[in-house]
Amino acid sequence: MSDTSPRCNIPIITLTTDFTDRDPFVGIMKGIILGINPRVQIVDLCHQVPAYNILEASFLLGSSYRYFPAGTIHVAVVDPGVGSQRRPVLAKAGRYFFVAPDNGILSYPYQEEQADLQVFHLTEQKYFRLPISQTFHGRDIFAPVAAWLSTGLAPHLFGPRISDYLQLEVPKPRHLAGRIYEFQIIHRDAFGNLITSIGQEFFSQQLSAGSGERFILEIASQVIDCLQPHYAALREQPSCLVGAIFGSSGHLELFAHQASAAELLQVKVGDTGTITFLE
Amino acid sequence: MSDTSPRCNIPIITLTTDFTDRDPFVGIMKGIILGINPRVQIVDLCHQVPAYNILEASFLLGSSYRYFPAGTIHVAVVDPGVGSQRRPVLAKAGRYFFVAPDNGILSYPYQEEQADLQVFHLTEQKYFRLPISQTFHGRDIFAPVAAWLSTGLAPHLFGPRISDYLQLEVPKPRHLAGRIYEFQIIHRDAFGNLITSIGQEFFSQQLSAGSGERFILEIASQVIDCLQPHYAALREQPSCLVGAIFGSSGHLELFAHQASAAELLQVKVGDTGTITFLE
Amino acid sequence: MSDTSPRCNIPIITLTTDFTDRDPFVGIMKGIILGINPRVQIVDLCHQVPAYNILEASFLLGSSYRYFPAGTIHVAVVDPGVGSQRRPVLAKAGRYFFVAPDNGILSYPYQEEQADLQVFHLTEQKYFRLPISQTFHGRDIFAPVAAWLSTGLAPHLFGPRISDYLQLEVPKPRHLAGRIYEFQIIHRDAFGNLITSIGQEFFSQQLSAGSGERFILEIASQVIDCLQPHYAALREQPSCLVGAIFGSSGHLELFAHQASAAELLQVKVGDTGTITFLE
Repeated sequence: MSDTSPRCNIPIITLTTDFTDRDPFVGIMKGIILGINPRVQIVDLCHQVPAYNILEASFLLGSSYRYFPAGTIHVAVVDPGVGSQRRPVLAKAGRYFFVAPDNGILSYPYQEEQADLQVFHLTEQKYFRLPISQTFHGRDIFAPVAAWLSTGLAPHLFGPRISDYLQLEVPKPRHLAGRIYEFQIIHRDAFGNLITSIGQEFFSQQLSAGSGERFILEIASQVIDCLQPHYAALREQPSCLVGAIFGSSGHLELFAHQASAAELLQVKVGDTGTITFLE
Repeated sequence: MSDTSPRCNIPIITLTTDFTDRDPFVGIMKGIILGINPRVQIVDLCHQVPAYNILEASFLLGSSYRYFPAGTIHVAVVDPGVGSQRRPVLAKAGRYFFVAPDNGILSYPYQEEQADLQVFHLTEQKYFRLPISQTFHGRDIFAPVAAWLSTGLAPHLFGPRISDYLQLEVPKPRHLAGRIYEFQIIHRDAFGNLITSIGQEFFSQQLSAGSGERFILEIASQVIDCLQPHYAALREQPSCLVGAIFGSSGHLELFAHQASAAELLQVKVGDTGTITFLE
Repeated sequence: MSDTSPRCNIPIITLTTDFTDRDPFVGIMKGIILGINPRVQIVDLCHQVPAYNILEASFLLGSSYRYFPAGTIHVAVVDPGVGSQRRPVLAKAGRYFFVAPDNGILSYPYQEEQADLQVFHLTEQKYFRLPISQTFHGRDIFAPVAAWLSTGLAPHLFGPRISDYLQLEVPKPRHLAGRIYEFQIIHRDAFGNLITSIGQEFFSQQLSAGSGERFILEIASQVIDCLQPHYAALREQPSCLVGAIFGSSGHLELFAHQASAAELLQVKVGDTGTITFLE
């Protein structure tokens, strides 16, 4: 092959939805995409987002999109307002593109890429599949727009730039008193690990503001005062029901030894705990 | 690249099965396909068809196949009779190909494409993987035939044309009396929406035969007498437990506001209701 | 296209994990792979391996890898020891490559390909994603190594060859007395079929050592003394709760007529039975 820049030749589109795999909805979106651009690589990011949970979808997207090559187009469809007045949007955020309903699902990527962010309202119907249904814009708007975008069209061709896009506040540790903060469980992963709203940067800043490396985390009557070096380390600490570690998403997470921390602690997404940074 | 018609260069094969994702069965089929034609795009349509449910698989296939580019090869394997006398077939139906057991799983596509339908009995063993197992024709017959077909071979090369292929009767509204019809629930989607056997065309014809836009639908003690413009519209009608809308499959479906209509109504696939079109 | 060996041009990477589809972990691995080699075909083999179950993952991999074209790279990540001292390895086994933690997950392929097996300890960090996390080597080590390998690099470039790799003993029929053997259930498939540790070769040898085709298999108070020709054959034998057949994995499996043998027999992975070969 005489391709000089082979990487740019194969565009990537990822899909994140709450469609699950019980229906052919995701497959249909892929059919639409391949009908417009048959050379694209389509990657499923997650289709098991809890139904209608926009913020959890946003977190999953926010903790994943950076691991793809520059130029990747991320499509996210958790869309309880489909068919209503909520707008469809296309965002150019840093080195990535996002195609989604304007309902807050892009809040995490927006926050990360605030310095280089342009959002466009999708209005050019020539890039839609017509007639547009009232129930499945993944098929009729988001998939075809992503596919046309993957052919190299510029984002501004799809509609006017807007500045009043919806950006939800993402959960962060909340200051309670002194050096005590309340955190939230923002995701439970497939292993039952509990991902907290405590990010690596916040944690490091708080620790370094004190004299050492010491903290006390409390949730569901459990007290944790150290980080584990890796998951298997808990095997040698039978007195510890759960451990804490900075997981692959860059957030502090709680885990058990080859068991579900969520079930052991009876803790679920939205529950809160406290973390105290010691002097 | 000197491709003049790039779209034709990348064939698409879709897979619909009841294999779920707990086993590597689907992955194995893909391995066989890629060993024969490594350039194909393979798309999972649905692998969570209720086990052995041929008619529901057929409905899912029938509501999906048209969203793919012309020439797409749809493989469907819900196959309780694997290894017995049931025949394997290849159908050219309109602009699409289907590869499946001859057990009725292609009934919906057959019905849609009756005007341009040719069905062939797969007998040419040189396109099979030998020896043929008694338990996994997805791997040994359907995957390799689809892959060889995707290389451009003509359908008649795979075996003789037949006219006695199995076409099951698909559920349709049944006339009860006057302008009253009984309908069936034919699918429950991942959100708990209930898809009925009432198609858009039938509904429009019945309505226009009357004086207006009026109908009364009854199921599980609920009465519905209007269509909703979109899912979110039910939010402003707290007195309505469920609403009706023409969903993306072209069938009337019953839904709840960000909840499962199936659970709220305690209704399941196969249950029936009535619809009365008013004068 | 002027490709002379088109099949070699599109490398294949398969993924087997216990990550399920509830999280974007698998999608993230694909993003890393496509960032290194955008032309690869990625196939999901299975992501529903029971969490931390290394030997069952190995069985699924062992019963699948051969159905892919020569040169396919199989990545397997069931990795409870991630971040600890367990080594990452790359194996060249027969016509295939494997990339995985050195925790026994490659035991079945090792056993099959013992005659042509080379195992390398992955130490060359230039093929890793840095910094390496303590929780997700699928993303940081196994995916990038597989992707670099798919570009044509030789296995020895990734680290030194080792001979002390971990190979677990795979379950085989255990001799009890005379011609009586104890077997184990090693996998329950999505249909509830129970896959036993009785391989085709062992079974044939034992039968031919006797005078005929006769055996008695006992498990959970059921007695089976013949093989069924195919799944549907049980329909005509209503007195048989379960039947036995050599399934697609090459192992004897127990099945029910369009029902779950596992539930009917209340048998699970790890349970045992006996098989007696008659004179």
